[in-house]
Amino acid sequence: MNWEQALGSKAELINTALDLLLPRASAYPSPIHEAMRYSTLAGGKRLRGAFVIAVADILGTDGERVLPAAAALEMIHTYSLIHDDLPAMDDDDYRRGKPTCHKVYGEAVAILAGDALLTLAFCTLSRLQEKGFEPGVVLRVIQEVGKAAGSQGLIGGQAVDLDSEGVKVSKETLEYIHNHKTGALFSASVRCGALLSGAGDEELQALSEYAKGFGLAFQITDDLLDLTGDQELLGKKPGSDLAKNKATFPGILGIGEAIKLAEDQVKKCQLSIARFGPRADFLRGAANYLLTRKR
Amino acid sequence: MNWEQALGSKAELINTALDLLLPRASAYPSPIHEAMRYSTLAGGKRLRGAFVIAVADILGTDGERVLPAAAALEMIHTYSLIHDDLPAMDDDDYRRGKPTCHKVYGEAVAILAGDALLTLAFCTLSRLQEKGFEPGVVLRVIQEVGKAAGSQGLIGGQAVDLDSEGVKVSKETLEYIHNHKTGALFSASVRCGALLSGAGDEELQALSEYAKGFGLAFQITDDLLDLTGDQELLGKKPGSDLAKNKATFPGILGIGEAIKLAEDQVKKCQLSIARFGPRADFLRGAANYLLTRKR
Repeated sequence: MNWEQALGSKAELINTALDLLLPRASAYPSPIHEAMRYSTLAGGKRLRGAFVIAVADILGTDGERVLPAAAALEMIHTYSLIHDDLPAMDDDDYRRGKPTCHKVYGEAVAILAGDALLTLAFCTLSRLQEKGFEPGVVLRVIQEVGKAAGSQGLIGGQAVDLDSEGVKVSKETLEYIHNHKTGALFSASVRCGALLSGAGDEELQALSEYAKGFGLAFQITDDLLDLTGDQELLGKKPGSDLAKNKATFPGILGIGEAIKLAEDQVKKCQLSIARFGPRADFLRGAANYLLTRKR
Repeated sequence: MNWEQALGSKAELINTALDLLLPRASAYPSPIHEAMRYSTLAGGKRLRGAFVIAVADILGTDGERVLPAAAALEMIHTYSLIHDDLPAMDDDDYRRGKPTCHKVYGEAVAILAGDALLTLAFCTLSRLQEKGFEPGVVLRVIQEVGKAAGSQGLIGGQAVDLDSEGVKVSKETLEYIHNHKTGALFSASVRCGALLSGAGDEELQALSEYAKGFGLAFQITDDLLDLTGDQELLGKKPGSDLAKNKATFPGILGIGEAIKLAEDQVKKCQLSIARFGPRADFLRGAANYLLTRKR
């Protein structure tokens, strides 16, 4: 099984879990539940959820047990995309190859669907006890995710990103944006998988370093794809960063230097997880995939 | 000390807790933290938080220990107001006597500030263990709040409310809206206070009935104030329900019947908490206040 197939099989598990955890589309009030399902089940690579499962796997915890955490992280990722796509934010019409949530259901329902996904994510995490985890560990997972998703994590990154449109930003500011907007949730994903598996501080530290490098390389390659990618594979229109005057790594460093920075980050990723041996092959494959990704 | 003074002293405790729990306005990225503080610390009666403390008091738990839960419920209430006030939703310019969050900070920051308050609420709840509560109890509190705030609670109520603008709705639909949009969070408040105090099922049931009656009567009197209230005391412009073609209890039942329904609910409130004796005087005063409230 190659890496893409391994990701696919994890994604399938996560999609099944999401389908069961999200309220039925027919549940009253229906439009909000339709919108939640539309955006969450619209595809997506499920990298964050896959990291939760992969890390549990490395540390000897059955992936099935951590599935609710994997699903919760994908709910948070989806809520952040729904809100980021709103007209008042990035104003995007397409996402994952389909019209964005507010294009289909209107802005009000899109805002509420995002709110509801964020809320459901915490509800879902709070029930991890049912999978046999200690309540104290579950609370630590909730704190981890809350911090990563909050105003000094994911939301902070988006706030600085919006503030930086049309402004010349430094490489440091751009790194802040991406370490928070993208990196924080990747870190939370590996750390949740680790905490639920009883990892020690050194293991947590190594996995956090992996996630930090991965998040940065992911964002650099995202920026590169926006310059050179194929609309059909991307599921959204390339060139949107340029159109919005967004700061990007290729924009600040040039394409050659940006590619080199991504490669350096991938090398750092590989070093940080060397200690885990062959069990960490999924994480290795994920880092390598960044250098050849088309979507 | 009369009821208003008792509420005031609880509100003061909650405001101090909120001030400490919210990131400093200067914390990077600053605009989002300014907006979170602006809306959360803009006043507000703190009824939800006061209910958490009052119920803990009835059941013999020190109010100081449940303060984080009280603050978390006020964060969720504030986030819901920020999002409800957005142009795509109720499009309100004033709240608590001040310009609404998006009027001061723009729509994007307002959306993010709401998201961040919701996230911080769950973070805050997840740290209740530090006040000596059992982790399992804390998880149950998070589930309670998550359910009340979710797509089949608070958010569901707002979704149906938006859907009902300009439409003739039944009394049943209007009750659904208010039981969810307003009642759910009042219920969660008393139930959190009760769960953190080790209440049994019967006590939980009695307090839930109180909260349901209180929520409905609160909303009916809110509708009445919108017809007859004073802008200065209200902190927002009366008549906005009419202007937006919102379904209201006076609109469906007539003013006389609406007042009678509120009075009936207040009687139900008083009956449901009779068992708790004089320790429940704060809850009694809260229900009576609804019949004379000016704001």
